[in-house]
Amino acid sequence: MPPFATTPEPPYYAVIFTSARTEGDWGYRDTAAMLEELAREVPGYLGMESTRGEDGFGITVCYWASEAAIAEWKAHIEHQAAQARGRREWYAHYKIRVAKVARAYSGPARKVLIAGSGESGELPEGA
Amino acid sequence: MPPFATTPEPPYYAVIFTSARTEGDWGYRDTAAMLEELAREVPGYLGMESTRGEDGFGITVCYWASEAAIAEWKAHIEHQAAQARGRREWYAHYKIRVAKVARAYSGPARKVLIAGSGESGELPEGA
Repeated sequence: MPPFATTPEPPYYAVIFTSARTEGDWGYRDTAAMLEELAREVPGYLGMESTRGEDGFGITVCYWASEAAIAEWKAHIEHQAAQARGRREWYAHYKIRVAKVARAYSGPARKVLIAGSGESGELPEGA
Repeated sequence: MPPFATTPEPPYYAVIFTSARTEGDWGYRDTAAMLEELAREVPGYLGMESTRGEDGFGITVCYWASEAAIAEWKAHIEHQAAQARGRREWYAHYKIRVAKVARAYSGPARKVLIAGSGESGELPEGA
């Protein structure tokens, strides 16, 4: 997937999942790829941003249009199975925070800089 | 810093910063370390979680007690200078999303599992 999620104008929701992996793969990569495909099919899925450092600490932020969409994904049967495996096998520790995004912006405004029209890199979301 | 931030019971705020680095360091690491020290001194700073993959894509989530604390940090003179350098030198692209955390939980409940008292890994925040 591309690293940045293209999200609509706020408000929308973010589920921030921070995790420390256990050692070894144990089917983790394949399941993560499958889950991403399944999440895309859930109405209200807006996108995902995810990275993991060499130390095994990772952050995944999943964006959703509504609390109902988050609830549907949380209850998805394949996701439930993965959550159970995650607790047993894949994660030494994790935290999940559910948040409502109020505003968003992006940068840098490299095209703007080239055009000589100012220093601001804080373009509106989607610009 | 430890990878996980120890945050209080919600509500609180999360600033989700996703970024793609340019190539080379250009003083980035030193500045990032300095900024983390400075952010800690801002009243209402709750913690930070950050990671970057080998592909240069990174996610940093900074937690704050209030919108006022976020505004104070955004306007901090050293942070302003770093923001300008970030737009010019360090980031090929970034997105910032400001969100209000409504609920949080963590896992896995390895101690609970060992005690045989159930499968749930969704402990309340801080448990």
